[in-house]
Formats: sequence, C-alpha cells, structure tokens
Amino acid sequence: MLPSTKTIGIIGGGQLAKLMALEGIRLGFHFKFWADSNSSAISELGPRYDSTNSSLLSFCQSVDTVVVDYEHIPLHEIEVIEQFSPYSGSAKLLRVGRDRLSEKLLQEELGLPANDYVQFESVDDINAVKDKLGFPFILKKRLNSYDGKGLILIKNSDELAQVSQQQDLEQYIAEKFISFDKEYSLISVRDKMGNFSSYDVCENTHQDGILVQSKNIVNPIVQKQANFINQMIAEQCDYIGIFAVEYFSVNEKLVINEISPRVHNSGHWTLDASVCSQFENHLRACVGLPLGATTSHIQTTMFNIIGDFALYQDLLNEPHAKIYHYNKTPRPNRKIGHINFSEVKV
Amino acid sequence: MLPSTKTIGIIGGGQLAKLMALEGIRLGFHFKFWADSNSSAISELGPRYDSTNSSLLSFCQSVDTVVVDYEHIPLHEIEVIEQFSPYSGSAKLLRVGRDRLSEKLLQEELGLPANDYVQFESVDDINAVKDKLGFPFILKKRLNSYDGKGLILIKNSDELAQVSQQQDLEQYIAEKFISFDKEYSLISVRDKMGNFSSYDVCENTHQDGILVQSKNIVNPIVQKQANFINQMIAEQCDYIGIFAVEYFSVNEKLVINEISPRVHNSGHWTLDASVCSQFENHLRACVGLPLGATTSHIQTTMFNIIGDFALYQDLLNEPHAKIYHYNKTPRPNRKIGHINFSEVKV
Repeated sequence: MLPSTKTIGIIGGGQLAKLMALEGIRLGFHFKFWADSNSSAISELGPRYDSTNSSLLSFCQSVDTVVVDYEHIPLHEIEVIEQFSPYSGSAKLLRVGRDRLSEKLLQEELGLPANDYVQFESVDDINAVKDKLGFPFILKKRLNSYDGKGLILIKNSDELAQVSQQQDLEQYIAEKFISFDKEYSLISVRDKMGNFSSYDVCENTHQDGILVQSKNIVNPIVQKQANFINQMIAEQCDYIGIFAVEYFSVNEKLVINEISPRVHNSGHWTLDASVCSQFENHLRACVGLPLGATTSHIQTTMFNIIGDFALYQDLLNEPHAKIYHYNKTPRPNRKIGHINFSEVKV
Repeated sequence: MLPSTKTIGIIGGGQLAKLMALEGIRLGFHFKFWADSNSSAISELGPRYDSTNSSLLSFCQSVDTVVVDYEHIPLHEIEVIEQFSPYSGSAKLLRVGRDRLSEKLLQEELGLPANDYVQFESVDDINAVKDKLGFPFILKKRLNSYDGKGLILIKNSDELAQVSQQQDLEQYIAEKFISFDKEYSLISVRDKMGNFSSYDVCENTHQDGILVQSKNIVNPIVQKQANFINQMIAEQCDYIGIFAVEYFSVNEKLVINEISPRVHNSGHWTLDASVCSQFENHLRACVGLPLGATTSHIQTTMFNIIGDFALYQDLLNEPHAKIYHYNKTPRPNRKIGHINFSEVKV
C-alpha cells in the first residue's frame, strides 16, 4: 500500500486536521476536508467540502479512509462514519467520547478507577449529589464540554439552587471535586491487528480548564498504571487509532478524568520528541499501515499559544522554539498555535 | 512580522519546494509555486503558476519573498529574481552556483582550497589539461551538471580525443581527479543582519555521482575548516539564506567540490536532528526573521530513496524510519523520497 495512492478524509478543519495533514503529506498521502468555511487552518492542504451544505455520506464515499479532528460529533454523523470508513471499529469510543455520561458508564463497565459522579434524571438527584459527592463538586455538561467550557464549580447549596433554576441539569453530570497533585495524560495507539503501544506519559498544566503546558516525563509508576488502563479501554472498545486518557493523580494514584478518541493536544510534543508522532501513527493505524515507534529521543515541553499573538513575536526571536502556527483567527481562550522546546535526553 | 500574513513564492516545484512549504506552512506562511505542470510534489501546498506559460516577473510581484528550489537558473531569470526579491543579495551566489567555471573563479578570488582545473577556450587547452592535471581527470559540464549528470571520467589520451570529437569542450571544465578518503558537506545560513551559523558537518556517500546517504557527525577538525570556508563565501558574496558546500577530504584536509546556493540534499537530516531545519532557516533568513538554532539534539542518518518504491514498502514496516515521500513519478536515478533514522545522542 503506497500512501501516494490514498486520499484521507478529515472531518473537521482545525489545528488537529492541519497537523495530521502536514504529517500525512510528508508521507505521501492526499487529503480532503469536511469543514465549514471558517476553517482557515486547512485552507491550503487539500480540497474542502463545505460541511454546512454538502453530504457527509458523499464525502466519506469519495475518500479511502475517514478520520476526525474533534470528538463532539452528532450521533447521525457517527452513524455515517461507521458505515463507510475502515475507522468504524472506533465508532464505539467516538460515541462514548462525545458524552461525559457515556464515559462514566464505560469506566464503570470496565471497572476502571473513575471519579465519583451523579447523573441527573430528576430533581431528587440534587439530594443524591449532596450526599454522595459533598461540596464543592463540578457540574460537567455532557455534550460539547471542552477547554473549560461547560464546567461549573458548585461550592454550596445556594449555588446549586441558583444553577438548577438557570440550567437544565439533565444536560449535566455532577462529579466529585478532586484535589489532585498533578495532571497526566497518556497517548496510546492501536492498529487493526490489535498491536498496542503508548508514548511517554505526559504531565499537563491547565489554566481555567485550558491546557497550557504538556511535557513527556519518565515516571514508571504512573506510566504503568496509565498504560494498563489505556490498553483495557482500547481492547474492550476494539479501538483503532490514537486516543488520549487524561488523569488526575493523588499521591501517584490515577483517576480517569476524560477520554478523547482522537489525536490530542497533550500529545503535540510527540511531533519533536518521537520518531513517529501521534498524528502519523493515527493515520498509519487508520489506513492499515504498521505502527511507527512511540519511543522518545528527547524531552520536549509544549506550550499552547492562546488567545492572541502577543507572545508569538517573542517566540520568533527565540532560536530554540519550534513553532506551530494554526492560521486561525485569534479570539480569547482560543488555541491558535503551540511551541515545542526540546532538550537533549540525559 | 507574522508569517501568517506573508506569501512566499518558490521557483521550482520539486522535493526541496515541498519540504520548504511543509516547514513554512507549519510556521503559518502561505506559498505559491512557479513550476511546470509535472510538479506533482507541490500539487497540494498552494497555487501553481505555470512556468512554461506565465511571467516570472508577475509571479515575483505577486509574492512577498522569492526563494528557489534549484540552482540551474537561466541568467535572465536570475535578473528578474534580483530585481523583485529581498533574496536579491544572494543573486551573486546564484550566478556562481549555476556554472562550474564561475565556482572555480570565486574559489580562486577568495583564495579557498579548490581543486585544480583547466578551462577550455581553444584546442590548445587539451595539452594544458594533460600537463596540469594528468590522467585520469574529470570533465564537468559547466551548466546543469548534477546527480552525476554531465560528469565524464577521462583515463587516457584516446578517451580525451574521442570525447573532444563528440562534445563541445567549451561547455566543460576539466578537473583533477582526487582520490579522496571521505566526502563531507557543511550547511550554513546567513541572515540579513549578517548573522552566520552552521549545522553539524555531515559525512556523505555517493554512488554514480548521486547522494545516497548523509549523516551529521562530530569532527571538530573538519567542522572548523569547513566553517571558515563557508563563512568566507557567505560574507564575501553577501549571501542571505541556506547554502551548502560539498568537500572532498584527504587526510582531513578539505578541498571544495561544489557550492549550492539553496537548501541541499545533504541537509535533510536537519529535519529531525535540529531544532530549526535547513528549510525553516532558509525561509527565516529570506523573509527577515531571526535565525533558529542550528544545534543538533541527536545523530540522524538520511538515506535517499532513488529510482523506485521497491524499498518504500519495507520502510513502512520499519518503526524507526521517518519517511519523506516526494509524490514524484519514479524513474531511474530520480530521487523520489528519503528517510531519516535518528539515534539518541550520547
């Protein structure tokens, strides 16, 4: 199978699409994008099919493989993707990853170390929340919550009462507030033959719910726990491709925070520290090529560029910054680029 | 200066154009190409202006900066480039690099360690060749000699007589045959402020005049000699951008073989061993950004994929091979891709 004869369709047109396409074009693949007209990130990397006016079905039929650049995919679109794409083995995790409640149910089903939560089905559940979780707790919107959006910290009964009047609580789950020491994530990949491999575990820093920094670390205790959990999720869901699990850590005991069935912001350091980046391995897995090595040569720290380009000019003057610019219009809290700083591994 | 507001025009549409564009799009730049309709390498990276039917002048006027992906540029095109491009400070080396005789004259002018040669102006020069160089010697075509094309080894008077009947010798120079131990090259970059920096010297292996392997090495003696020569060339020519000088080495004494005023095949390892690749630094220098670091994290060996894709399928099965596929139609002796193998630096 020669990549130069294959066209990969990407659903979405943000930075993950751009970074997948840059890696894939290097390998010889061709790309098409199913994205709206604001998708400036991918404007020069292949033809765009307007996602507001064209058929997803025709798009999927016109390419050899379909991958996604975001997890908040409507169910009717997932149904199309799983019919026409070799990627369909992963539709279970796409269905799970789009809904915070489904994530919790999967974690329970697999017996994985998940954070306590309460599902809202009736007003009575408000009392269950108080009993089971105590204050403070987090309200998480089930759908479309990311980068700090759809998260509400509830500190007392008054705040809960107020929110329950303003919001439809059935769109939320309540989750125990964890006073974690550290946040980690582990990026793993599984191919169609069942081969499974993980990158270095990475330590992450968030501000206001948005990832600001991520770096690969050497921590065998955390690596082993996370690898066990990631492998169980991948095998039980028969997942194909790259996925990320974010973890909270209290004294090096991990609790799952979120599962993302796609390439992930906390894996951008793999572009410079690894032989085969998360983007290349995702494409390899989805088209049926053997996986590339997930080992690291070096320690790399990634910083997101968020909101505006004030920092960008300084970074251009920093000879050791490797810059990834997303060609997106800046707005507050929007990720518009990232940089990788690499050090020699000792 | 934000890269996302700049369009870079590339003259040529081969693999060097593709690799420059992939690095530049990562940084946020936009690209246009002045190339013929066979330029499949760059077909998805920006609009192509047909070099057989459109005006180079209009092309140069439509972009912010012009760079080239080959050195065999007709003089009338160099004249256009130097009028309209911030790159024009480099036109002297473009003029020199296209003609093997001009290279020799420059080396003489600068007092650099060059290989003995004879220029053919009349039939009498045939005798000068025998006296000055002895047999065997090399005939090098002045224009358009690369990848082993335009090179003829002359072993005796009979061969010389035969070639002088078949070829117009004035299109050639005769060069002494050097029985070298090793072949090196040094890739350097100079910006508009006069800042100069070199990558690790690299050791190269050719077969039939075509580069097959190149790797960065640690050899302070060779590095120092080559760096001195490269810096003198760059400063004396007021060159802006990346350039390569290829060297023959006899007992670690260097003699210049060729000068290439552009990104170079023997610098492809910089894509994986260096913070800032030769492609990014060439763009940075030509648009007026500060240079990125030329230091290496690791040792990387590059192998060219030449002629056909027989090897390519095996490489896809090798998890440590980082593959660069040029999307070019295979034909004998044509470079259609390369791979980088990186090791941890000790």
